[in-house]
Amino acid sequence: MIVQEKLNHFINTNRELIGQELQYHLKQLDIPEQLKASMIYSTEAGGKRLRPILLMASFDAYNHDNNKVLSSAVALEMIHTYSLIHDDLPAMDDDDLRRGQPTNHIKFDEATAILAGDGLLTLSFELISNDLHLTDGEKVQIIQLLSTASGPKGMVAGQIRDMEAERKAVTLEELETIHTLKTGELFRFAIRSGAYLGGATNEQIKHLDQFAHYLGLIFQVQDDILDVTGDAAKIGKPVGSDEANDKNTYVKLLGIEGAVEKKENYVTKAKKELSDADADTSHLMSLVDYFSKRDH
Amino acid sequence: MIVQEKLNHFINTNRELIGQELQYHLKQLDIPEQLKASMIYSTEAGGKRLRPILLMASFDAYNHDNNKVLSSAVALEMIHTYSLIHDDLPAMDDDDLRRGQPTNHIKFDEATAILAGDGLLTLSFELISNDLHLTDGEKVQIIQLLSTASGPKGMVAGQIRDMEAERKAVTLEELETIHTLKTGELFRFAIRSGAYLGGATNEQIKHLDQFAHYLGLIFQVQDDILDVTGDAAKIGKPVGSDEANDKNTYVKLLGIEGAVEKKENYVTKAKKELSDADADTSHLMSLVDYFSKRDH
Repeated sequence: MIVQEKLNHFINTNRELIGQELQYHLKQLDIPEQLKASMIYSTEAGGKRLRPILLMASFDAYNHDNNKVLSSAVALEMIHTYSLIHDDLPAMDDDDLRRGQPTNHIKFDEATAILAGDGLLTLSFELISNDLHLTDGEKVQIIQLLSTASGPKGMVAGQIRDMEAERKAVTLEELETIHTLKTGELFRFAIRSGAYLGGATNEQIKHLDQFAHYLGLIFQVQDDILDVTGDAAKIGKPVGSDEANDKNTYVKLLGIEGAVEKKENYVTKAKKELSDADADTSHLMSLVDYFSKRDH
Repeated sequence: MIVQEKLNHFINTNRELIGQELQYHLKQLDIPEQLKASMIYSTEAGGKRLRPILLMASFDAYNHDNNKVLSSAVALEMIHTYSLIHDDLPAMDDDDLRRGQPTNHIKFDEATAILAGDGLLTLSFELISNDLHLTDGEKVQIIQLLSTASGPKGMVAGQIRDMEAERKAVTLEELETIHTLKTGELFRFAIRSGAYLGGATNEQIKHLDQFAHYLGLIFQVQDDILDVTGDAAKIGKPVGSDEANDKNTYVKLLGIEGAVEKKENYVTKAKKELSDADADTSHLMSLVDYFSKRDH
């Protein structure tokens, strides 16, 4: 219980901090009003800030001077937000609602949504390159990791593979490749860059990298499980919508029980890697359960 | 005549070099085929490589070891290409042809075009961050300049202002603000980063920055003039299409003679700044005339 309360405190404090930092960086921009409003709209639209919180938890296992991670955490959330804006576009997933709110191109228009996404993506690199708390070497390392994770070898590849896999049967292996690219790469960036900036050794980072891989898969299996067993009000979409849209999911491939078993298996593996990382990873340990048991 | 031949040699050699480098970086990518084909298609689509050539000419005024500028030149062309792909999308300018070839979303599809643009944008920062010829300090400086020039304060702002100005009358001042953001910022990046990497002093860079500003405007006035007086086969679109589309142009605001006069005025100013930059700027000097007198 105390562990749970500690984690909740950590999550709430940092969620608020990330929100403030995001707004600070966006509101001060001297740019066209419509573009600014559109960029702010999607970063404010009720995101859980999971990725920056992971980054901060990973950093926190080695270091407590938050100033060193804020720009990377904010940049990561900007990149995640840009990817959602572009994913929702009519030519992509064509979604009108996200988290119960109109998507960016519905609230504004398609052209603005495309440019808001482009703007957030580019701004994320500007932000890191201008951070006064990082050395040049640290900035370059973070930019390398972030551009690789989010670019054509990472998240963008996942997005195109996901579209190619639509309405065709895929194997479990193919499904995991898509998730690893589309979601897992940003999770890995969060964990690796947090640990790197915190001062972890290469050996520790290696274990954390494996941990992040499993955590990404836990996140995704739980997403698929929630689609079947969740509460529509909490998950923000109708229950069973994956099946209705003929989506490739763990539940479709393994059944509910198989999916739960798979998730438990990943939880065990993730925790093993954390133990091997040999640091104060208590927040990360609690986050595994948080991810595995989340109801939205 | 000899000056002209020297410039042509410089342009042709570096155009080929940029093309080779671009292909080298793209072809080796281990990414989904469709994404890769789409990214390569638009970078190969007959671009003049003006921006990277400017960058290399600016560098060449101070230094001759090309290795130091190649990644910045290639990254710049990737960013320029991404902006064209996104500009051509149905929700933006809705163009089916560019330089006489099908635009990216026509050749592939809209989703692929959006992702190819996102991919090229992200890859440009990855490329610079991994360049073995640059120090960490140089990488950070280039990434700062490039992200600022191409992001929401620069090119992206120009794009949204351009759309907002469509089909409404603008003043000459507003027209120049749009061009300065939409085209000028990448020209400024080319000139500034080339000079910076070449070892120019801050004082020299200041003059070159002004030079780049005027060069961008010369480029744009000539574009507008060519739309009226050019050869359709050479400019790759029907003569008079700006007027037909009711576009805001220098010719519309000043008439042909006024536009030519404006251009000559900028040529004089650009050459003055170059003289003040005090280096071997002979290629840049010839490029002013090349930009001013180009027929496509």
